[in-house]
Amino acid sequence: MSNSYGTLFRITTFGESHGHSIGVVIDGCPAGLELDEAFIQSELNRRKPGQSKITTQRKEEDAFKILSGVFEGKSTGAPIAIVIENSDQRSKDYSHLENTFRPSHADYTYEAKYGFRDHRGGGRSSARETAARVAAGAIAKLFLKKYAVEINAFVSQVGELKAPHYTQLDLSKTENNMVRCPDPVMSEKMIALIDQVRLSRDTIGGVVTCVVKNAPVGLGEPVFDKLHAELGKAMLSINAVKGFEYGSGFEGVKLHGSQHNDEFYNEGGKIKTKTNHSGGIQGGISNGEDIYFNVAFKPVATIMQDQQSVDKEGNEVTVAGKGRHDPCVVPRAVPIVEAMAALVTADFILRSKVSKL
Amino acid sequence: MSNSYGTLFRITTFGESHGHSIGVVIDGCPAGLELDEAFIQSELNRRKPGQSKITTQRKEEDAFKILSGVFEGKSTGAPIAIVIENSDQRSKDYSHLENTFRPSHADYTYEAKYGFRDHRGGGRSSARETAARVAAGAIAKLFLKKYAVEINAFVSQVGELKAPHYTQLDLSKTENNMVRCPDPVMSEKMIALIDQVRLSRDTIGGVVTCVVKNAPVGLGEPVFDKLHAELGKAMLSINAVKGFEYGSGFEGVKLHGSQHNDEFYNEGGKIKTKTNHSGGIQGGISNGEDIYFNVAFKPVATIMQDQQSVDKEGNEVTVAGKGRHDPCVVPRAVPIVEAMAALVTADFILRSKVSKL
Amino acid sequence: MSNSYGTLFRITTFGESHGHSIGVVIDGCPAGLELDEAFIQSELNRRKPGQSKITTQRKEEDAFKILSGVFEGKSTGAPIAIVIENSDQRSKDYSHLENTFRPSHADYTYEAKYGFRDHRGGGRSSARETAARVAAGAIAKLFLKKYAVEINAFVSQVGELKAPHYTQLDLSKTENNMVRCPDPVMSEKMIALIDQVRLSRDTIGGVVTCVVKNAPVGLGEPVFDKLHAELGKAMLSINAVKGFEYGSGFEGVKLHGSQHNDEFYNEGGKIKTKTNHSGGIQGGISNGEDIYFNVAFKPVATIMQDQQSVDKEGNEVTVAGKGRHDPCVVPRAVPIVEAMAALVTADFILRSKVSKL
Amino acid sequence: MSNSYGTLFRITTFGESHGHSIGVVIDGCPAGLELDEAFIQSELNRRKPGQSKITTQRKEEDAFKILSGVFEGKSTGAPIAIVIENSDQRSKDYSHLENTFRPSHADYTYEAKYGFRDHRGGGRSSARETAARVAAGAIAKLFLKKYAVEINAFVSQVGELKAPHYTQLDLSKTENNMVRCPDPVMSEKMIALIDQVRLSRDTIGGVVTCVVKNAPVGLGEPVFDKLHAELGKAMLSINAVKGFEYGSGFEGVKLHGSQHNDEFYNEGGKIKTKTNHSGGIQGGISNGEDIYFNVAFKPVATIMQDQQSVDKEGNEVTVAGKGRHDPCVVPRAVPIVEAMAALVTADFILRSKVSKL
Repeated sequence: MSNSYGTLFRITTFGESHGHSIGVVIDGCPAGLELDEAFIQSELNRRKPGQSKITTQRKEEDAFKILSGVFEGKSTGAPIAIVIENSDQRSKDYSHLENTFRPSHADYTYEAKYGFRDHRGGGRSSARETAARVAAGAIAKLFLKKYAVEINAFVSQVGELKAPHYTQLDLSKTENNMVRCPDPVMSEKMIALIDQVRLSRDTIGGVVTCVVKNAPVGLGEPVFDKLHAELGKAMLSINAVKGFEYGSGFEGVKLHGSQHNDEFYNEGGKIKTKTNHSGGIQGGISNGEDIYFNVAFKPVATIMQDQQSVDKEGNEVTVAGKGRHDPCVVPRAVPIVEAMAALVTADFILRSKVSKL
Repeated sequence: MSNSYGTLFRITTFGESHGHSIGVVIDGCPAGLELDEAFIQSELNRRKPGQSKITTQRKEEDAFKILSGVFEGKSTGAPIAIVIENSDQRSKDYSHLENTFRPSHADYTYEAKYGFRDHRGGGRSSARETAARVAAGAIAKLFLKKYAVEINAFVSQVGELKAPHYTQLDLSKTENNMVRCPDPVMSEKMIALIDQVRLSRDTIGGVVTCVVKNAPVGLGEPVFDKLHAELGKAMLSINAVKGFEYGSGFEGVKLHGSQHNDEFYNEGGKIKTKTNHSGGIQGGISNGEDIYFNVAFKPVATIMQDQQSVDKEGNEVTVAGKGRHDPCVVPRAVPIVEAMAALVTADFILRSKVSKL
Repeated sequence: MSNSYGTLFRITTFGESHGHSIGVVIDGCPAGLELDEAFIQSELNRRKPGQSKITTQRKEEDAFKILSGVFEGKSTGAPIAIVIENSDQRSKDYSHLENTFRPSHADYTYEAKYGFRDHRGGGRSSARETAARVAAGAIAKLFLKKYAVEINAFVSQVGELKAPHYTQLDLSKTENNMVRCPDPVMSEKMIALIDQVRLSRDTIGGVVTCVVKNAPVGLGEPVFDKLHAELGKAMLSINAVKGFEYGSGFEGVKLHGSQHNDEFYNEGGKIKTKTNHSGGIQGGISNGEDIYFNVAFKPVATIMQDQQSVDKEGNEVTVAGKGRHDPCVVPRAVPIVEAMAALVTADFILRSKVSKL
Repeated sequence: MSNSYGTLFRITTFGESHGHSIGVVIDGCPAGLELDEAFIQSELNRRKPGQSKITTQRKEEDAFKILSGVFEGKSTGAPIAIVIENSDQRSKDYSHLENTFRPSHADYTYEAKYGFRDHRGGGRSSARETAARVAAGAIAKLFLKKYAVEINAFVSQVGELKAPHYTQLDLSKTENNMVRCPDPVMSEKMIALIDQVRLSRDTIGGVVTCVVKNAPVGLGEPVFDKLHAELGKAMLSINAVKGFEYGSGFEGVKLHGSQHNDEFYNEGGKIKTKTNHSGGIQGGISNGEDIYFNVAFKPVATIMQDQQSVDKEGNEVTVAGKGRHDPCVVPRAVPIVEAMAALVTADFILRSKVSKL
């Protein structure tokens, strides 16, 4: 159950870091959608390891294969299964971890929950699982193009370094640099900071901001499946995420209602709001304004330093810093955040089709 | 679909602010649980309006009736239906709002989504719906007592006023004051601030922090249904919530991995962590440490001031400040946050029973 | 979980035979549907006990109250909660059954599954639960009227007595007699048989046939949620049902493919089949022909005779024939079968809205 | 959604007859189960085409590959993905069907529902999809071995030829002959009949009976998810199935309650029933007696004869008999029925773990 997400546009992912492959089954993609395979690959390339000096040097081509659900280039309404084979598996790199619980990883909790675990590269808890999400999210994005919905995420913070509010940025520049921050000055600083952290054999956290433009009015369901509640769950389900806020978020609690309320006005027959502290969502339902939210990522737990821990028997041990990992996860998290946002939005577009007679 | 929550311990709520009643059906409560009705009522009393000078003066007794699922004082395994009749309904108070979209309320989005709406008191979008959650949450708390799990929420911030970290507070003192902040000094300041905001006919936001102690190791499911992802969704589904963070949260992004990682040690045969930036959750699964998280609430949208808006036809109108509402929602949100946390925890305890052979 | 049914048009029922009330929450009824309360009551009246000499003499008025989800006579898109209070509760009639397992009832299995049970009138296992389904089904029927879908069930068999195939009957005559068989001759025989069985303090089984006309082409989902698979589950979930078959059913296995296949032809631009062994469903999806199916009901387990059984401690006991029950369940089962068929059809109409771009 | 089945032990299948492969993802198999790959293959071999003269001569090896969820031979609790590549694809055989709707196939309904279809071999509507179910069912059977549950299906009817009641048969002999009927005399007659039908270029229907022994008491949920309701849905979801009955089934309607009721008695401390018209299920819940049910299969729609039909434009056309298909589906349906029964039973065993405190 825990490996599926979505109500009508629904995905099920599978696969471990060092197993045969990872993959996803997409059930509920409407028939007739042209599946642009080059676009899917380009999205996977944005997430793949080894793409720049500030990401892990592990190499995975992340070439995908569609096994089902497509005929003559279009979705048939049948489930679309996609598989990405694992290539650069150095399972032996992990043999020293078989009995050891790495700090702030899922080793201990998986062992406790399941009685044993696939220790190679984190197994199912590896962020490699997110490649399956990006492939499925690419298909959701193709679906959203029919509705002119645009989803753009970017790195808005690394450590203490913060980019300006998204409304002051040109989001078309996100892919111009390796850290995926559209601010040309701040991006340089962020890259320098990550590089310095990497050299000190450490890691650092960051924030990804995501903006959804042109979402139809009426997405989201009242009560439990509010649009922002599902966006929150989707983002918090990404590895290393520690927080989610939308619109005015945590800062908004400091405001008065008279400052925070978004007054309506009529712009040439269209109902708009003067401000957008609501983040495009009121009562859990999209109101046509930009939907925007922040996603906090902790510093990557794998560091190139010795750490104290315990093994399965409870003996105290030293975990050596080994392996190939990202000094900061946010540059590669950008397409993952977009993918999850696309999946949530596509799902709610389908759900919105049955709201009224 | 959107009115149900939970996988195995599952609730479905119904009812509008000014209809006949609100209620909840709890499906999946194991048989044999003694249902302490006095406890359920005491939880509802913590949420009910009119309990102090800093809450709304609206009066609702929130007396509940159990319609089913209980025999000789114990749950039978059948669905437990609970109804709370609406009493203090001044529907006429809302007649001026029939055609008007109040700023930052759900009026416009409901109208767009459903074609028309029950405008009386917000209808289904009213926070009154949360009384049903509190009733269900009380039953979840009774279930959790069997596992010695304790859930304590409190007000940790009002406007700019912040209480110390929960580890420096005595959470048994939360109910000692009307703002539900266990810090005796800060609580006075918060009350004064809310009272001042109320007198200025305005509202203000705040943060509720929640701590879950003694949760078993192994709660939460990998990938999409991570423990913190479900907690996040549950919290974000509460009216007026704008953000969720757990453990180190948004502040944690500033740290290095070497600072942030929680090293394991062996405490008399029990595996513990030296720090708890993880917030008791690693890889989406509880590790036995305290689970703690923050929930941001925006300032209440109803203010006693004139605001500009539009009506259904798009005419610009002035919305007058009328009705009886909370100047700050967080004191009454404390039991709601606890209720949702209890429901999520109870659900994952049931789900954890099928993880391994 | 087991008390909910449907994917998008979804119901959750609650309540026991001798508790406060029974009821249902309908989640997913599109907004804007006019809820004709007189129609809902008329459907409940078709199911209620005490309506003729061949049904139980127990009296229940089955008056219902809508608690939520309706505003100015129309559905709002919010969940519709309906409650029916229990009136004629003679709980004492059942005190002799507290420790006894009645043959072919749910007493033993409930006790084993839940550790104890509400023994009064079967508690949750009572067929009284079906009143909630009929109320919800009435709303589904109102929804189906928008699509001109007609659902007609009737009694096609009692004991060995069988009515002709539905295509040879005038289904508008079903309500003309108390056994709900539209054949005027056969209905008399059936009534006489049931009356004779009743006088012998026994019970007898029967078959209800249901015909769905004008269902749109394209209802049902391939693979697991085939239209007939959901119809089958829905029917088998009704108390006392032992079998389900659609189209040619069990008799069809005797035919050759060359006899059984339904050849297509073009009738004035509309694609039709010459025969309808498919029962209006091909590959799990409606093809526009009549959908028809049979539902087998066992003889009611409560008989007015002594039977051997055991009690909780395993002692052999004699169960005396007591209480007020139907000698044959099928006349009152007709509206229940229709209700479940309506709920399934309404659900698939909603689901069909997202099949293609 | 329609491609998933089960609540806690849950499968999602994918793949088309003439695509790259078919497969299944099993989510919810508890960790620690030893996955006997030889057993999985042996189950697939029982279903595969070309195994005898009375099955289709199409050749598929149905070799499977496990992509995930298994480590050191045991399930890890992560989803188990299994892929079976399609080998003997003669897609060209189907080019003449691109625009034609074959009688009693899913061609017309798929085209109507999805706007276009993969016409090669039925695409997603092909019975080839059931290979994925058999693979998943084999894993469910391995799980059920831990509970000593035994599932045995067999062919009980072909055309008019009926085997005796299962209680009079030695079910260990089912695999002794190619028709999978354990009665040595009747099996010969059935084989002769199928062979004769095949030579006449026609097809014929049949019935598969399934018996589940040693199921724990307490499986199944009251109300909608009754054990027999889920078994019914699972069976009706198999291609070509037209009916389902359990215990006394359709014949039971002819009995009186005094004949049909299963009286309890105490057999050495164990509560048993003297007869078993209930089919091991009372009130939707297993009572420890044998669970048995019948599944009706229509004659295969593909016949080697000319038939009248229409094409996409509504033109009347003749469909020629071509391709390689089974003259009677029931011999190969036996392992499919068992697989679905195993999946339902495994799911309810997991669900039963949360019934009471």
